[in-house]
Amino acid sequence: MKQDVKSFYHTSCHTDLAVEMKEEVERKQKLTGIEVITKNHRYHGIKETRIEITDSRGEAALGKPCGHYITLEMGKGSKRGVKNKLSQIVSEVLNDYLKDAKHILFVGLGNRQVTPDALGPEVMEQLTVTRHLKKFGLETQQDVKMLSALAPGVMAQTGMETVEAVRGVVREIHPDAIIVVDALAARSSERLNRTIQLCDTGICPGAGVGNNRQEMNEETLGVKVIAVGVPTVIAVPTIICDAMEQMLSLLGAKNADKQLEELDEEEQFQLASELVEPYFTDMFVTPKNIDEEIQLMSECIAQGINAYIEGEDA
Amino acid sequence: MKQDVKSFYHTSCHTDLAVEMKEEVERKQKLTGIEVITKNHRYHGIKETRIEITDSRGEAALGKPCGHYITLEMGKGSKRGVKNKLSQIVSEVLNDYLKDAKHILFVGLGNRQVTPDALGPEVMEQLTVTRHLKKFGLETQQDVKMLSALAPGVMAQTGMETVEAVRGVVREIHPDAIIVVDALAARSSERLNRTIQLCDTGICPGAGVGNNRQEMNEETLGVKVIAVGVPTVIAVPTIICDAMEQMLSLLGAKNADKQLEELDEEEQFQLASELVEPYFTDMFVTPKNIDEEIQLMSECIAQGINAYIEGEDA
Amino acid sequence: MKQDVKSFYHTSCHTDLAVEMKEEVERKQKLTGIEVITKNHRYHGIKETRIEITDSRGEAALGKPCGHYITLEMGKGSKRGVKNKLSQIVSEVLNDYLKDAKHILFVGLGNRQVTPDALGPEVMEQLTVTRHLKKFGLETQQDVKMLSALAPGVMAQTGMETVEAVRGVVREIHPDAIIVVDALAARSSERLNRTIQLCDTGICPGAGVGNNRQEMNEETLGVKVIAVGVPTVIAVPTIICDAMEQMLSLLGAKNADKQLEELDEEEQFQLASELVEPYFTDMFVTPKNIDEEIQLMSECIAQGINAYIEGEDA
Amino acid sequence: MKQDVKSFYHTSCHTDLAVEMKEEVERKQKLTGIEVITKNHRYHGIKETRIEITDSRGEAALGKPCGHYITLEMGKGSKRGVKNKLSQIVSEVLNDYLKDAKHILFVGLGNRQVTPDALGPEVMEQLTVTRHLKKFGLETQQDVKMLSALAPGVMAQTGMETVEAVRGVVREIHPDAIIVVDALAARSSERLNRTIQLCDTGICPGAGVGNNRQEMNEETLGVKVIAVGVPTVIAVPTIICDAMEQMLSLLGAKNADKQLEELDEEEQFQLASELVEPYFTDMFVTPKNIDEEIQLMSECIAQGINAYIEGEDA
Repeated sequence: MKQDVKSFYHTSCHTDLAVEMKEEVERKQKLTGIEVITKNHRYHGIKETRIEITDSRGEAALGKPCGHYITLEMGKGSKRGVKNKLSQIVSEVLNDYLKDAKHILFVGLGNRQVTPDALGPEVMEQLTVTRHLKKFGLETQQDVKMLSALAPGVMAQTGMETVEAVRGVVREIHPDAIIVVDALAARSSERLNRTIQLCDTGICPGAGVGNNRQEMNEETLGVKVIAVGVPTVIAVPTIICDAMEQMLSLLGAKNADKQLEELDEEEQFQLASELVEPYFTDMFVTPKNIDEEIQLMSECIAQGINAYIEGEDA
Repeated sequence: MKQDVKSFYHTSCHTDLAVEMKEEVERKQKLTGIEVITKNHRYHGIKETRIEITDSRGEAALGKPCGHYITLEMGKGSKRGVKNKLSQIVSEVLNDYLKDAKHILFVGLGNRQVTPDALGPEVMEQLTVTRHLKKFGLETQQDVKMLSALAPGVMAQTGMETVEAVRGVVREIHPDAIIVVDALAARSSERLNRTIQLCDTGICPGAGVGNNRQEMNEETLGVKVIAVGVPTVIAVPTIICDAMEQMLSLLGAKNADKQLEELDEEEQFQLASELVEPYFTDMFVTPKNIDEEIQLMSECIAQGINAYIEGEDA
Repeated sequence: MKQDVKSFYHTSCHTDLAVEMKEEVERKQKLTGIEVITKNHRYHGIKETRIEITDSRGEAALGKPCGHYITLEMGKGSKRGVKNKLSQIVSEVLNDYLKDAKHILFVGLGNRQVTPDALGPEVMEQLTVTRHLKKFGLETQQDVKMLSALAPGVMAQTGMETVEAVRGVVREIHPDAIIVVDALAARSSERLNRTIQLCDTGICPGAGVGNNRQEMNEETLGVKVIAVGVPTVIAVPTIICDAMEQMLSLLGAKNADKQLEELDEEEQFQLASELVEPYFTDMFVTPKNIDEEIQLMSECIAQGINAYIEGEDA
Repeated sequence: MKQDVKSFYHTSCHTDLAVEMKEEVERKQKLTGIEVITKNHRYHGIKETRIEITDSRGEAALGKPCGHYITLEMGKGSKRGVKNKLSQIVSEVLNDYLKDAKHILFVGLGNRQVTPDALGPEVMEQLTVTRHLKKFGLETQQDVKMLSALAPGVMAQTGMETVEAVRGVVREIHPDAIIVVDALAARSSERLNRTIQLCDTGICPGAGVGNNRQEMNEETLGVKVIAVGVPTVIAVPTIICDAMEQMLSLLGAKNADKQLEELDEEEQFQLASELVEPYFTDMFVTPKNIDEEIQLMSECIAQGINAYIEGEDA
């Protein structure tokens, strides 16, 4: 039964955010194998949640591998105001994850032609790569790390699994670690474009838009992979699930016999599956002003990575 | 009660396609004040529906002004194969609408930074404007019309109603008619990016993405306005409505007392409103490969307009 | 003779920078009708030159109308470092020019598809327009001005003179003043992408890339026009002229009879004209990293305009 | 002395076109080790020149390795009219070069942010990649080859030599051959954007814009490399050289003592070097309508590659 709950949320009501998975699971069971620390940056209205999955029970509960997941959530106020603070936290987290790395390969996942999927390529455009300068002796400051960068495109453009292109490049240039940026999917519209998730366990490219590709992690690439993501889309079934749940509770209140409320999760899942037409699995939900959101969040992440590379917070 | 039906579909389950409005209304009432001709281009799998709204009863039923609405729907096969045929029909329809116009102003509505809203600007990039050549005597073929073009951007970028910018330009350059291209919203995912709608009654910019701006038509602009649209998005409430309807019928079959089936349209609408969170009104649903779809449909429309301007089908 | 000198430099060795025109003319004659103030912002390495053309003698000498021309030149150091200071000066200059304006129309000239001509549209993408917010009461801070914006495109895209589109919009929305941003041509590669020129006499769109269009100024548009420009290209004949001049002096030194040195300006001009093939008038010279340069300078100008609109330096 | 001639033209008056190198060398010496076949496609006004460098004398004369160089030059008429014919020839040439290849890796070189350097990425956007479809069994037609594609970006964006990224990908996906597309430099403005060069000896990325990077050829990549290029820029020194030559002949006629005409090539080269300021080596000359040119030429090449992949001309 637990398995069913998990597959329900991971398949139909998809989220890439560890913080949302935790919330879902918490509703049903006591969490074991998971440690959570929450910190409020009051002045800037940023909520920081650090989730550590410590063993296989935690892995089973959240459907994610052991590792550190850090979620930075902005409050409801102006995002512009907190951009610099967020960048600074991103830079600090990267320093924690990759203290001794000398050469970083940045990988900007996604399709630059589809606005909500363009986060990775947009971040790349704002990075200051340094590998060629270091190699030619044009950048001599010790603290500045080597940075190389790649935006490999998506399978419909390249005919390749992203991991193939990245693994090939890794074998040529031998970075110490990889920082991957990708657009993610969220459950909640409130977290959309207001949340940055960092983790040290890699990423599954295209998960946000429902294209499950081969994973990019230390196992498949041979070096540590830090993933930085922002939820920019919601899957269509997620929205249907939410509406259905609300509808059930509304209807339940009206029906004396309570038959509807008695549908268990398994039955709700069956119902949701029938309501979701197959073609909607190739669609996503995104806000109208997604161009502004991507611009702002990509600036924020690029600034954080640039500061990390320049050793400003080291 | 009829009013409620209308506002239900126009507000919550939004569509810009006359052909979808007709289908909705037909389910409930006999159509009066509306004439419909359907034609199948069998070889290319294109279905052409010509709806003429002839009087105020038709206007009331479809919620659209008197005029000619032509919908071209592609079949399920390859779109590439029928592109040239579609372009040719677009060119012919423009010739029917604007037989004697000598100077056309093209207006490409939408936001080029948001993929599903970029149809208008993308078409403009593929047009061959001729007004300046005609004026300088560089284009002397009699049959070639004058074409000027504008992509005014959206209110969040310009601070203006689109109609303000267009009216200003019209007063300066005095075109005989305007061709406006915009992305639309559809009810049905099957029509998404497979349908072109042309009409001679103008357009409401941004309707597709739910931003209702001032109308662009003969009344507000002083010259005939031909609108060409392609549905590229579905509104979130539309999808919720559909799921809800299916759920009600599923549940209805299970419930002996049939209480749920007895919800009338008014009650269904109330229910849908409660299920749709306010922030979803600023979101839309679009397919993952929207970049390819926009590319193909914009080529198709641009080719049709270029052929019309060059007088090839005159 | 004066006329010949002027037409020589304005036609063949084209520059849009008042500061370069002044240098050219100064080499040949005493300046009258022109007042010059120079200021060095030592800390940031910015040289500010204020040229006021006060009467018809100044107009004749520089080939520009009476008015205030301010040139900000960056030193050879890192441009990133002085970006904020430059933005601040831009904001202050706009405040001097347009102290009492309440509603500004921004016009971003140029072709976004051609990198060195994309300055205007790039600035527009980074502006915060406010007119619609002010009108709907969503922006209520007194100090914040109304800002609307337009990127009309170039004649090959629109079939219109830019001034036609802008005049139409001005008549609809009645701004108090216009700020126009465009890419310019310079004589000197050292000034390329390191200089911002501001003036209160308007602009001739496309002058930078050699397309002389109708002027945009108070006379043609009915409101004050502040022009902000950055030289991003050099005209091909300019480079030929320079090489020729150097060649003449090299050869002159070698030739005992000095025949070559004795070519006067008129003859030099004839020579240059014969050396420049006609098709080169449709070409320009630009640096390879023009994408980075445009990005940086557009950020700088947009930041300055945004600060002016928000009343930060008022 | 021959060596000097060669380095003069290859360094100062740079061209990537074999056909231009041949013309230069022919002016000075009898060609040996080089075979030339010319064919006129009269109806379409296309001139096809096939140059085969057969031995080391030919290599020395043209400064290019042994191999087949095919140049397609359009006449002065409309380019639109001959696009389809050119695409067809491109497809046929690819078939000749790569008769038995089953899996092709396309590499689109250049910087998509700088218009004249964007040819490679623009072609890639118009390709139909098939490798993933073939692997998943979604494309089963025997004649259709596997196509994968990569646009690796330029060193300033990636910190890598292009050959590093490409070699890595080649080792992962094992294509039978590579087709590389890049923008080139030409000597003559008449050939700019009117010429396609194909060769089977690989390419030096960025040569067109003067950035000499590590070569991409069978030796460095392990598989055959077919290069397809279009000249989109002229180097600044090329233009100075041309003007200088013309000036010398003009001046020569005027000077009784003929001293100037007597400058030999060595001395002309010295002179040109002194005339060309060092910063101009980082600049290029390109036409104002480069956006339209790149659009047209990229369509033409993409269409040719797509036809080759689909086996239409096999």
